[in-house]
Amino acid sequence: MIRKIVEDDRTSILRLLDDITIFTAEERVVAMELVDEALERGDRSGYLIYCSPAEGGEIDGYICFGPIAMTDGRYDLYWIAVHSHCMRNGLGTELMKHMERTVHRWKGKSIFIETSSTPNYRPARRLYDSLGYRIAARVPDFYREKDDKLIYTKKVSRQ
Amino acid sequence: MIRKIVEDDRTSILRLLDDITIFTAEERVVAMELVDEALERGDRSGYLIYCSPAEGGEIDGYICFGPIAMTDGRYDLYWIAVHSHCMRNGLGTELMKHMERTVHRWKGKSIFIETSSTPNYRPARRLYDSLGYRIAARVPDFYREKDDKLIYTKKVSRQ
Repeated sequence: MIRKIVEDDRTSILRLLDDITIFTAEERVVAMELVDEALERGDRSGYLIYCSPAEGGEIDGYICFGPIAMTDGRYDLYWIAVHSHCMRNGLGTELMKHMERTVHRWKGKSIFIETSSTPNYRPARRLYDSLGYRIAARVPDFYREKDDKLIYTKKVSRQ
Repeated sequence: MIRKIVEDDRTSILRLLDDITIFTAEERVVAMELVDEALERGDRSGYLIYCSPAEGGEIDGYICFGPIAMTDGRYDLYWIAVHSHCMRNGLGTELMKHMERTVHRWKGKSIFIETSSTPNYRPARRLYDSLGYRIAARVPDFYREKDDKLIYTKKVSRQ
């Protein structure tokens, strides 16, 4: 069901990002920059985006990841977003596992995730924990005072 | 003496990067992508590049840094490169101090630097140490097996 992004997903993704109240305006702008790069330049952009389609041409969620330049098969999860009404359906887990299978197929070796230490991101951190991602490092006050960056990682293996 | 990048610096920077033997081919490509972004889109690119001019229209070194999206006044040092014959002249220090003054003028609060833990990068790490940057975090095996990412940071204050 999960499939690569197509041009028509752009407006659905905009709506999805608006629906997620923890995202700031700046976060939405950055998320859409990656979507536009991926739509314009395809895989060469370095951003791989996969969507979970819903009824009526909408999407229930999407994931954006890609290879980290100048590393040996390391990938970065840039963005994952799931509609609030799908949060309890395991769609986040499905999208994450789709990413892991894709990275494995591309001969990737590990995945890194950078996220915030604030309470808003607790559901995201719980998702990463549940899938076996471990905290590799913490950068104090990275985003702002008392908002640390947590760096999760997991080795990729056959699913 | 240090001034903003201009179109004519492009070929000098190419030559400079070729002169630095520790850079891999991929590192040179990534460095030039940032140069081209800065030349095409100016400050809007998010890459601020300053050069130290030399005789004959060449440059002795350059520095590339910019604001980190979705942070409160955090800046990233993306690239610093100095011709081998200038390494002992303190040009690296001059470029770094120029960055710090610029970040301070732009109301930036702190600078982060990501670098490799391998011996090749020892001179760079020594430069950061000497200027008061401290290691905020270490990400094991980030670039490849046994090549960790070190994250340095320093608060920016009036120089």
